[in-house]
Amino acid sequence: MPELRKGPLLRRWVIVAPERGKRPLDFRTEDAPEIKRRGKCPFCPGNEHMTPPEIYRVPAGDWRVRVVPNKFPALSDYPALNPASQGPFLKMNGVGAHEVVIDTPDHAHDLDELPQEQVELVVETYVHRLRCLAEDGRFRYVQLFKNHGAKGGASLSHPHSQIVATPIVPPEVEARLGAARDHYERSGTCLVCTLLEEELSAGERVVEVSEKFVVLAPYDSRFPFELLIVPRFHAHDFVAMTQEERAAFAGVLRRTLARLRNLLGDVPYNFVLQTSPVPEPGKGWDWPELPSGYHWHLEILPRLTQLAGFEWGTGMYINPVPPEEAARHLRGVKQ
Amino acid sequence: MPELRKGPLLRRWVIVAPERGKRPLDFRTEDAPEIKRRGKCPFCPGNEHMTPPEIYRVPAGDWRVRVVPNKFPALSDYPALNPASQGPFLKMNGVGAHEVVIDTPDHAHDLDELPQEQVELVVETYVHRLRCLAEDGRFRYVQLFKNHGAKGGASLSHPHSQIVATPIVPPEVEARLGAARDHYERSGTCLVCTLLEEELSAGERVVEVSEKFVVLAPYDSRFPFELLIVPRFHAHDFVAMTQEERAAFAGVLRRTLARLRNLLGDVPYNFVLQTSPVPEPGKGWDWPELPSGYHWHLEILPRLTQLAGFEWGTGMYINPVPPEEAARHLRGVKQ
Repeated sequence: MPELRKGPLLRRWVIVAPERGKRPLDFRTEDAPEIKRRGKCPFCPGNEHMTPPEIYRVPAGDWRVRVVPNKFPALSDYPALNPASQGPFLKMNGVGAHEVVIDTPDHAHDLDELPQEQVELVVETYVHRLRCLAEDGRFRYVQLFKNHGAKGGASLSHPHSQIVATPIVPPEVEARLGAARDHYERSGTCLVCTLLEEELSAGERVVEVSEKFVVLAPYDSRFPFELLIVPRFHAHDFVAMTQEERAAFAGVLRRTLARLRNLLGDVPYNFVLQTSPVPEPGKGWDWPELPSGYHWHLEILPRLTQLAGFEWGTGMYINPVPPEEAARHLRGVKQ
Repeated sequence: MPELRKGPLLRRWVIVAPERGKRPLDFRTEDAPEIKRRGKCPFCPGNEHMTPPEIYRVPAGDWRVRVVPNKFPALSDYPALNPASQGPFLKMNGVGAHEVVIDTPDHAHDLDELPQEQVELVVETYVHRLRCLAEDGRFRYVQLFKNHGAKGGASLSHPHSQIVATPIVPPEVEARLGAARDHYERSGTCLVCTLLEEELSAGERVVEVSEKFVVLAPYDSRFPFELLIVPRFHAHDFVAMTQEERAAFAGVLRRTLARLRNLLGDVPYNFVLQTSPVPEPGKGWDWPELPSGYHWHLEILPRLTQLAGFEWGTGMYINPVPPEEAARHLRGVKQ
């Protein structure tokens, strides 16, 4: 069963989640994760019995989006954390949830190749599941992400996204909240709103501006062609979008992934939502002014470079493509 | 030319280092990095002209270890940082050095398959180059690492290690120093010495104990079969080892990599040295008691799992092999 562990050298929670039935020596195989062929794909219509019991589908009957538990969950449905220490070591039960959103019945086409209405349905599903998990009470953060392509960490090629609910605010989220909070306390303004103004006036890293969203290549991009989708309206929480905003988000997500495909081919990528943590029932957030100071955004991280010793040792990334150049190429491409 | 950049959302330095002559669209190729064939390997004897001008060789004449500049350096030989800010963005010249240690003239055998004397020569070379770069004056950290195998980030298969000197103390090093410092200020003892005592008395994560070194699977391992080589003698700086200690380190490194190979086959891995930063000339370290409180160690990180959206979003790792199980298997294996 999954366990959260923290040691004295790194002081960061790690998830130890032994895969069911997999023994250490099974790691001897050096092949890429098996990409299931169409006939046997557990995410294809007709194979619904191959997944764990369904959490959600829309519409009822012949589904267009479906949500199921991850077969090898990173975190599980424990009732309580039961933290315990032993000398310099801390551990807790791996309390959480790990869901898979099957983006489409179509095995072979990713979000940018699907009709706008289908992507809107996917976004509606994200919002629905994020809201349900936030209401559970045991979780402090709900992480939405998508792994695309074998080099993006996808073990099944049928288009899908994932949602993991964690019982703590993860360190990467804490770091971003810290940056926003420091800025807010210094200036009384939202860091992301300020950044958007700067970027729109500089222009050189902007890929697309629409009525409700900006797409830009961040100044400190860690990966070639890294992108940020940022709402132009101030909003701390992804799930608070109106129906109209959700439809606009589906559109900008679809167009941005299409730009990457049209420039780079079927590029492996991860996308990652950075949104508000879940307030503790009856206590709220550690930072009470979070709704004024935090601003959600989506990161898209193409996986064209490999992390290796330098990155693990230093925590620093090496990016061979300046974001100004990435933005210039992506601006010019068909969406 | 390489540039260090820091943005307002992440507040971490990133290296933007455009590869000479490589254009963004060259990233369209989705193949693994080319592993050069024997005849054309720039690291093989006879092909010395294929590398940038040599920095060091030992012995003179028919070399057994050779050091050359990296052809695509992450950081370069600028005279000064010249930091500059523009709105919320900071940048500096990418001051540094990036060297490649060619571990052996033998194209096909990694450290654990070479004679003890050869590995001792490699360790002597590490110490020599780390010391030279520390004496340069412009660098605050010198990162030694090794990438093995295509999935470990190696673009050439001929056994080699790398050294990057950075003009700042990298964030991952700062985090470890912070943990050691907090412990030292609370208890007056070295964190790693305390951890070693705990681990030796628990026993379940220990892989090997020799006169001068302990090999263990850390409690909070982020990767399956992650290992730590820790000197049993307190020492803040890798380069301060005596000749006898260096020979013992060569032995434990060789045996530990052999254990991994004998258990898992030719597993891709990174190893990463965590050692003392370089004191600023005339100023010393920010933490004056660093030599009493810090303790170098080498991390070995097999690359059997893939980082993806969850890890980027949260900063948390998922490890499917409990370190106690990894240690049990590695203890039982031939070295």
